[in-house]
Amino acid sequence: MLTVNAVAAPSATEPLIRTTIERRDVGPNDVLIEIHYAGICHSDIHTVRGDWGPQHYPLAPGHEIAGVVTEVGSEVTRHKVGDRVGVGCMVGSCRECDSCRRGEEQYCREGNIGTYGAVDRDGTITQGGYTTHVVVAEDFVVRIPDGLSLDVAAPLLCAGITTYSPLRHWNAGTGRKVAVVGLGGLGHMAVKFAHAMGAEVTVLSQSLKKREDGLRLGADHYHATADPETFEKLAGTFDLIINTVSAGIDLNAYLGLLSVDGALVNVGAPPEPLSVNAFSLILARRTFAGSAIGGIAETQEMLDFCGEHGIGPEIEVISADQVNEAYERVLASDVRYRFVIDISTLA
Amino acid sequence: MLTVNAVAAPSATEPLIRTTIERRDVGPNDVLIEIHYAGICHSDIHTVRGDWGPQHYPLAPGHEIAGVVTEVGSEVTRHKVGDRVGVGCMVGSCRECDSCRRGEEQYCREGNIGTYGAVDRDGTITQGGYTTHVVVAEDFVVRIPDGLSLDVAAPLLCAGITTYSPLRHWNAGTGRKVAVVGLGGLGHMAVKFAHAMGAEVTVLSQSLKKREDGLRLGADHYHATADPETFEKLAGTFDLIINTVSAGIDLNAYLGLLSVDGALVNVGAPPEPLSVNAFSLILARRTFAGSAIGGIAETQEMLDFCGEHGIGPEIEVISADQVNEAYERVLASDVRYRFVIDISTLA
Repeated sequence: MLTVNAVAAPSATEPLIRTTIERRDVGPNDVLIEIHYAGICHSDIHTVRGDWGPQHYPLAPGHEIAGVVTEVGSEVTRHKVGDRVGVGCMVGSCRECDSCRRGEEQYCREGNIGTYGAVDRDGTITQGGYTTHVVVAEDFVVRIPDGLSLDVAAPLLCAGITTYSPLRHWNAGTGRKVAVVGLGGLGHMAVKFAHAMGAEVTVLSQSLKKREDGLRLGADHYHATADPETFEKLAGTFDLIINTVSAGIDLNAYLGLLSVDGALVNVGAPPEPLSVNAFSLILARRTFAGSAIGGIAETQEMLDFCGEHGIGPEIEVISADQVNEAYERVLASDVRYRFVIDISTLA
Repeated sequence: MLTVNAVAAPSATEPLIRTTIERRDVGPNDVLIEIHYAGICHSDIHTVRGDWGPQHYPLAPGHEIAGVVTEVGSEVTRHKVGDRVGVGCMVGSCRECDSCRRGEEQYCREGNIGTYGAVDRDGTITQGGYTTHVVVAEDFVVRIPDGLSLDVAAPLLCAGITTYSPLRHWNAGTGRKVAVVGLGGLGHMAVKFAHAMGAEVTVLSQSLKKREDGLRLGADHYHATADPETFEKLAGTFDLIINTVSAGIDLNAYLGLLSVDGALVNVGAPPEPLSVNAFSLILARRTFAGSAIGGIAETQEMLDFCGEHGIGPEIEVISADQVNEAYERVLASDVRYRFVIDISTLA
């Protein structure tokens, strides 16, 4: 057992504090990773505050992990000491169901094992990346390509794969018109990916406040959704809309922006149910869908894609003592576009 | 101009009556069809009663038309006098947009021209199939294969294509698990088609009342949705669910029955918006979609498929004087499974 420094929530209602947590011994198939950077995801906040259900505390969140391998188990073949690696939203799955065999462990029939706050196979509760070290089964660890620095790589493990996977699944690419709703941590990655894949990219954001940013990141067009004209002008336009906003939106207005056979894909889940007008779907064979992160193989593919295309998130690196302040700024949408914790400040 | 006998609604609130309506002269690209049979679709009732918006009256409904060509325009090449033909839910479209060029006239960007109650290109209001004759542009007329009798063929023009098209689009076939919600006019055709395509077919009906019928029509399984256990037992099972029920249903319960990447496709449109839990979509990349009839080429393909496989609806043939009574029985779900008007009783 390894006792390591961490930033963790002592309860659902208290600020995060410096503390220690325990890591299991490195098993034959495990790797020990010295974490260098951990991204802050909006869902970290929801989880530690109990918005999505009760948790065990103390809980160290964090599922955007980048670091270096410092020890490997006796049977590990994929990684070696010194490798630059990442861990995302899951650290295990059944490995046997049809989804796992297809390499889509995120849709494991048994449910994948979340990187933090989940019951691990040994019955312990998993702890996330706001810590100095993590022990993970080697097949849930991905390589970070040389061209990507570890701080920039960290948010790709959630914000990156969550947007990359649906863009691939619904064929964003040359000749396709893709809209991204919301220009936050996920949205700004969706814009970069869709642009790199060759699509014509439109940002749909509440206001034009981040317009300059959006165009710089790769968007071809930028429209304010607060302006009702946007929905008239763009009716029937898009092949694919990636909705990164987890607050409730007027779904039917957005469905009206889809072309025939277009798909509106939610990657964020609003807590309230959404209201859908079936006519809007029927009259143009539209689909409303959802997508969750991506499989391990696709996460590797996404990282390699980022390496090749020189793509990464825009980040603001903070120290371990700034996490609570960062949370408030995430909630206020005051970050362009992802906070990353420098874990060396935890040492 | 041709004056022909018809059964039509004089207003939104009165019963249908025998009357006459007018048909345009046969243009160079038109065919004149002597109608032998016209099916009664639930949407006929909604439309004449103004449930879906105000109408011009008198209005003869009917978009499941089967008959024989009795005259062709000078430039007609597809059909000749004596041909057994059908007309479905649309009689025109722009013919120029991407949807029309793809042969999906039902999704015409300008909106297709409905067989009744729609504004035709000449500004007149279209009149449907509860009449002795109809004049239709030849490219919106399909051939009825020899193996199909005209009375059985009629309902295929709406109930048939409306279920055939999404089954094809979402790849119902060998190895796929398909559920059909509701065993009515549309549902019973969906069961027959999905079975003929090789899928494993399950009927989800409120009760087990029609179970014997469902199995005889080709279903492999039959479950009552009034039994909450159904939703537990079948969780995560289906690749495709065709929802033929236009009353509101608990969509999230049905979404839970979908496998990873499964699709729930509405072919009926409830007037009230449906409530969707985005988590249910996200956690298994499920889709909620809609589908409207099918294109002309696909309608022909469907009729040919019926001819080859000996498939047709179960029908109850009625006389023109029984239409109002039939409407009440449709509203009471008291028909197995489609009323077809014998138009010779209108002569």
